[in-house]
Amino acid sequence: MRTLQYTAPRTLVVADAEPTSPAAGCIQVGVAFAGLCGTDLHIFHGDMDARVTTPLVFGHEMSGVITALGPGEQEWSVGERVTVMPLSWDGVCPACRAGHEHICQNLDFIGIDSPGALQEKWNVPASTLVRLPSSMPLDVAALVEPVAVAVHDVRRSELAEGDRVVVIGGGPIGVLIATVARHAGAEVVVIEVDERRRSQISDLGFATVDPRTTDQAAWIEEWTEGAGADVVFEVSGAAAAVAGATGLAKVRGTIVVVAIHPQPRELDLQRVFWRELRILGARVYRREDFERAVQLLSEGVIPTDTVITRIVDLDEAQAAFTDLESGRALKVLVKVGEVA
Amino acid sequence: MRTLQYTAPRTLVVADAEPTSPAAGCIQVGVAFAGLCGTDLHIFHGDMDARVTTPLVFGHEMSGVITALGPGEQEWSVGERVTVMPLSWDGVCPACRAGHEHICQNLDFIGIDSPGALQEKWNVPASTLVRLPSSMPLDVAALVEPVAVAVHDVRRSELAEGDRVVVIGGGPIGVLIATVARHAGAEVVVIEVDERRRSQISDLGFATVDPRTTDQAAWIEEWTEGAGADVVFEVSGAAAAVAGATGLAKVRGTIVVVAIHPQPRELDLQRVFWRELRILGARVYRREDFERAVQLLSEGVIPTDTVITRIVDLDEAQAAFTDLESGRALKVLVKVGEVA
Repeated sequence: MRTLQYTAPRTLVVADAEPTSPAAGCIQVGVAFAGLCGTDLHIFHGDMDARVTTPLVFGHEMSGVITALGPGEQEWSVGERVTVMPLSWDGVCPACRAGHEHICQNLDFIGIDSPGALQEKWNVPASTLVRLPSSMPLDVAALVEPVAVAVHDVRRSELAEGDRVVVIGGGPIGVLIATVARHAGAEVVVIEVDERRRSQISDLGFATVDPRTTDQAAWIEEWTEGAGADVVFEVSGAAAAVAGATGLAKVRGTIVVVAIHPQPRELDLQRVFWRELRILGARVYRREDFERAVQLLSEGVIPTDTVITRIVDLDEAQAAFTDLESGRALKVLVKVGEVA
Repeated sequence: MRTLQYTAPRTLVVADAEPTSPAAGCIQVGVAFAGLCGTDLHIFHGDMDARVTTPLVFGHEMSGVITALGPGEQEWSVGERVTVMPLSWDGVCPACRAGHEHICQNLDFIGIDSPGALQEKWNVPASTLVRLPSSMPLDVAALVEPVAVAVHDVRRSELAEGDRVVVIGGGPIGVLIATVARHAGAEVVVIEVDERRRSQISDLGFATVDPRTTDQAAWIEEWTEGAGADVVFEVSGAAAAVAGATGLAKVRGTIVVVAIHPQPRELDLQRVFWRELRILGARVYRREDFERAVQLLSEGVIPTDTVITRIVDLDEAQAAFTDLESGRALKVLVKVGEVA
């Protein structure tokens, strides 16, 4: 079978490998599509070399069909359409004991810390599988994971119907958060520097602001009749976005930190104090977020045509990363194997 | 009557003034004691010259006795012992309409934005008065305001019985937060650089850590059996404290920003994301915090002998600020007038 391996910074290798039979408790999935995300880009750049073991078969957003069962498996059947929630927790750390297994202190993020979906036959723990409706196209289904991220972020924000919500950063996760928040009854504006992205986002019916030409704080103040936004999602990863985010939130408003900020960032703590703001970290998802993501995709809430920019074959993946780096693409899917 | 006025940076003047009769809706209070706090120190240094109008009779922590009533006043009587919750809100801004009057977007903080307690006869809106038990000594009663700050901070943290709590900064507010948190059932450690303060805090029965000689993150990790603290209060105002605070909190733990940080601070947002931390601003208090503070002082929960370092006469206030600047004093009270 074909696999895609990260071997060194900016180096991907299509390598042949022998599929293995799933062990007890595991399931073999024939992978149809795998999505590439910002974390994969960090791996590709070598930024995560201290964490990953090379060669690494990466990939953690996917869809597929069950091709084999581990010994004694009762719950699943060959031929079922599935996706994988790529988290494996230890169940014994303080975070797990407190019910926060999804951010276990010793979390194994499958596809980063252990082999991922960019292989034609992928063995995963049965506990990670999530059923897909038989009517859902498998390219669409490869979006369940990023939609689950957005569902988790919106759930964490506790936003309410009628809230005014700001999304800073209009990449794939920003667009999905905006979509999920709007579906929950919020009014949403997306702050995005790239003109092409703003145009796509406008076409989806969202207000957009270019922070380089518009005084974003004044814009939000006017939009909210002097109150400030109920919820601000920081999805850009930019230092300037963090510096400005506190100026957009209302008294007792919420800022959700979704993006990865590898360096410490300057934050206006005086504003946090003055307005009694709430800043929440939000990472990955829980099973209920995955199930909700499947439901939202089934109901056609997610603008999959806009979000999926391109589908490439496994041996074109290196070129696909160039598209991602340029900001020209939202989501690129890799066609991994032929499945039923 | 005597008043204490801030006229210019590092300049306080004892000035004579004529008491005025309270207007309708107002009450005249004979001020017994006024406490000096960090904000008063900022005023003294000239750091708040852009906000305050000079000459300013400042002071917002106090105790006293009612000496005259505004026309038609029914609810209060001459001779009652009172303190003042020094907040006046507009009632119409978005924050007020959402029920957050205490941090009204146009808040008048009495004693900063309008004349304060460092005068023998002080006219205040009747709505700001809080009744004191007749048995409470008036020097002790001058602590109600800072205790209410601590009560508000602890309430905002939502800490639960049995929680492990870190207080960064062992000044007066830090000591009061530690005391209120312990009374609520938490185990508390105070991180403080000053040896004399650590010694005082140890004498109150709290664990202390010197962050210059101890690896505080390792200490907290061991203390919490690998989990991290449930709640961290940032009361120091130091950049290094902010940088380190995120490393002390457990998965889904809470950091409460109590201190004033005039400059933006570097914050480890990666840790906020990774552990899904919650950062909460906490400012001033609500009436229920004042009432709870009166109750805690009445019950002897607050170590007033330790907290009140010194009581000075009005014309010694300038010297008292030198004590506060040096960090030698916790709370200095000014004896403003002779009251019944």
